[in-house]
Amino acid sequence: MARIDALHEISPLEGGGNSRLAFTDHDKAGRDLVVAWMRDLGLEVTIDGIGNVVGVQPGFDVSPVMMGSHIDTVATGGRFDGNLGVLSGLEVIEAVIESGEQLTRPLAVGFFSNEEGARFAPDMMGSLVYVGGMGVEEALDTIGIDGKRVGDELEQIGYLGGAPVPGTSPHAFVELHVEQGPVLEEEGVTIGAVESVQGISWTEIVIEGQSNHAGTTPIRLRHDPAYVAAEIAVFVRNLALRFGGDQVATVGRIDLHPNLVNVVPATATLTVDLRNTDEGFLAQAEAELRARLVELANTEGVAISANVLARFEPVVFDPRIVDLVERAAKRNGHSVKRMPSGAGHDAQMFARVCPTAMVFVPSVEGVSHNPAEFTSVDDLAAGAQVLLDTVLSLAGGYPSQEAHASEPPHE
Amino acid sequence: MARIDALHEISPLEGGGNSRLAFTDHDKAGRDLVVAWMRDLGLEVTIDGIGNVVGVQPGFDVSPVMMGSHIDTVATGGRFDGNLGVLSGLEVIEAVIESGEQLTRPLAVGFFSNEEGARFAPDMMGSLVYVGGMGVEEALDTIGIDGKRVGDELEQIGYLGGAPVPGTSPHAFVELHVEQGPVLEEEGVTIGAVESVQGISWTEIVIEGQSNHAGTTPIRLRHDPAYVAAEIAVFVRNLALRFGGDQVATVGRIDLHPNLVNVVPATATLTVDLRNTDEGFLAQAEAELRARLVELANTEGVAISANVLARFEPVVFDPRIVDLVERAAKRNGHSVKRMPSGAGHDAQMFARVCPTAMVFVPSVEGVSHNPAEFTSVDDLAAGAQVLLDTVLSLAGGYPSQEAHASEPPHE
Repeated sequence: MARIDALHEISPLEGGGNSRLAFTDHDKAGRDLVVAWMRDLGLEVTIDGIGNVVGVQPGFDVSPVMMGSHIDTVATGGRFDGNLGVLSGLEVIEAVIESGEQLTRPLAVGFFSNEEGARFAPDMMGSLVYVGGMGVEEALDTIGIDGKRVGDELEQIGYLGGAPVPGTSPHAFVELHVEQGPVLEEEGVTIGAVESVQGISWTEIVIEGQSNHAGTTPIRLRHDPAYVAAEIAVFVRNLALRFGGDQVATVGRIDLHPNLVNVVPATATLTVDLRNTDEGFLAQAEAELRARLVELANTEGVAISANVLARFEPVVFDPRIVDLVERAAKRNGHSVKRMPSGAGHDAQMFARVCPTAMVFVPSVEGVSHNPAEFTSVDDLAAGAQVLLDTVLSLAGGYPSQEAHASEPPHE
Repeated sequence: MARIDALHEISPLEGGGNSRLAFTDHDKAGRDLVVAWMRDLGLEVTIDGIGNVVGVQPGFDVSPVMMGSHIDTVATGGRFDGNLGVLSGLEVIEAVIESGEQLTRPLAVGFFSNEEGARFAPDMMGSLVYVGGMGVEEALDTIGIDGKRVGDELEQIGYLGGAPVPGTSPHAFVELHVEQGPVLEEEGVTIGAVESVQGISWTEIVIEGQSNHAGTTPIRLRHDPAYVAAEIAVFVRNLALRFGGDQVATVGRIDLHPNLVNVVPATATLTVDLRNTDEGFLAQAEAELRARLVELANTEGVAISANVLARFEPVVFDPRIVDLVERAAKRNGHSVKRMPSGAGHDAQMFARVCPTAMVFVPSVEGVSHNPAEFTSVDDLAAGAQVLLDTVLSLAGGYPSQEAHASEPPHE
């Protein structure tokens, strides 16, 4: 909690949150503080070509069990999102050092650049480059919403490092994070054993109809984009209910033109956000949406175009590590629920190169990306304890009867 | 056509329309031109306390049969909307003078201030004041969208006149206007015999839900104002189809907040425009909408408030004059259809004080309030001919076998 409070003191917002956009002076101040803490714990600190920072326990010749997350925030972010995963990693390493426990693998903790993507797209940039999913030159040449270039800004804050990217794959990766959703609180559960990240499909739909006077145009002669947009919003809601499971569907944006009380609009633009942990269901949802668009274009006499804004397949975490998380929670007397993540996280990038899972703790009212983001101290501590137990199992700290747990799950 | 073209030359817009907002210098130039034409025809011109201008044939001691409309436009208006009713009135009077026909009543033509309401609310201000529906002092104190006061602007352009308001009721009132809707063109009909003006009910609906992350919040835990707004838009469309007849329903405005692809909105604001020529059906539509809002608030766990922006009861025109219009059309070999007006017109104000009806001619593609507004010369001429025949019947110019048509329908 002392580290969380100290990191919060950099760029604090009224109401409890932080504004620490990637590669700003605030980001530099946060980085400097966390690096100092890493060095205080005797970790070897490396900085790579996209500014990812990893601290690893020295004196081992095998790959580490890595923890970590990010310390950048959105413009009006909370104090736990990302920071918790980094600072709890420091806490775990400190606890292991203090206990004198001898592990067969080193522990490492990292923070990865520009996870939020609030200033530079794409989000999860640092971990994506770390695992080889994006070339470092392309990342450095990214221009932000303020016209600045990633490489210039990174050099400016002194975090354009020399460690190679892609980075060395860790033995395993575990990220503790606040849920950023309401499920754990709603169900009264303390620990989420995260077994997947939902796949995401974002579509922007533009409907061109015919603008008409709202009084003089009979319904039968209308080609009303607002009505078609409404039918789409109702359709995707019903689709999500029909599919059940993890399926969610959201129309978050609707823009009508000219957007006047007494004018049938000429155009409507809306977005549909579809998510599912199962690629098959996600693809089926997309296909059903496309079919509905064709149907509406025909029956309503409007032109509908659909443009994919983003598309990510679901990520499935390593079931052996999910088991470890679940067992660690139970061993410590915490209620636990296997669940998907609805948001993206650095861990999903590491899942490409090593066994990976995540630990969630409750977010009060599901609020995140907001200064009001809150998780109780008890829940934060429970999450850190589960993280500790999980990485101990992975690093040879529990040579117990739990044979397959202590077996490194490297594949 | 020469007068239409000349009036168009004042404040012309690229593409054929006009920008002649009420009480501007452009309005003054238009007024000066029309007043000069009135005087050319020997009419006695009066200007009243809200700037309405009426030209009447001199030498009679009975109330006139009045024609007229407005010459102000919206900011990007057409060249026929309003102007047609005024200039065709001049044409009718000129034709009667040239024919030497002796009438038992004088003919009059007027243009009424600020019909469009595009700069000063309410619309139809001049005719409303003329018939005593609004006090002249209240009208003069109206502040416009540019912060200017009606009285000051009217004085500035020299049209704050001395004729009393409310004005003298005419014997009857007939307004020729472009339909501003697609029905006549769609059905291949030349003349609309307008028997009513739809009643209007405008409601602004504000839905307050709970903003959530589009990925992390299961459907069952959402309180989604965008979904509720969509359900309302679909409901009113289906209501209009179910009611049939003249019922129309439009959602022309939807504003979501924060209006982002991956955020369940916190609030949605939308407008519902309901219109019907039957007050009972209109009230029933409003009641069904209110019931649906209560239902959605309960099932979706959102707060819904509804605010009436405007409410006007339907206006029914005098069936005897509607008959005259219909017969005049047939006599001249034009197809004719009895129909409602979906838009508001000065004639609906005169319907409060004297027998009134309207004549519609087709608007190509129903376009109006747009420089592209268009009606063919043939249709304009057909409308003017029907207007002529109708006012001749009302002013004693057809002492024919059509007994009840020549009978002045004064009540």
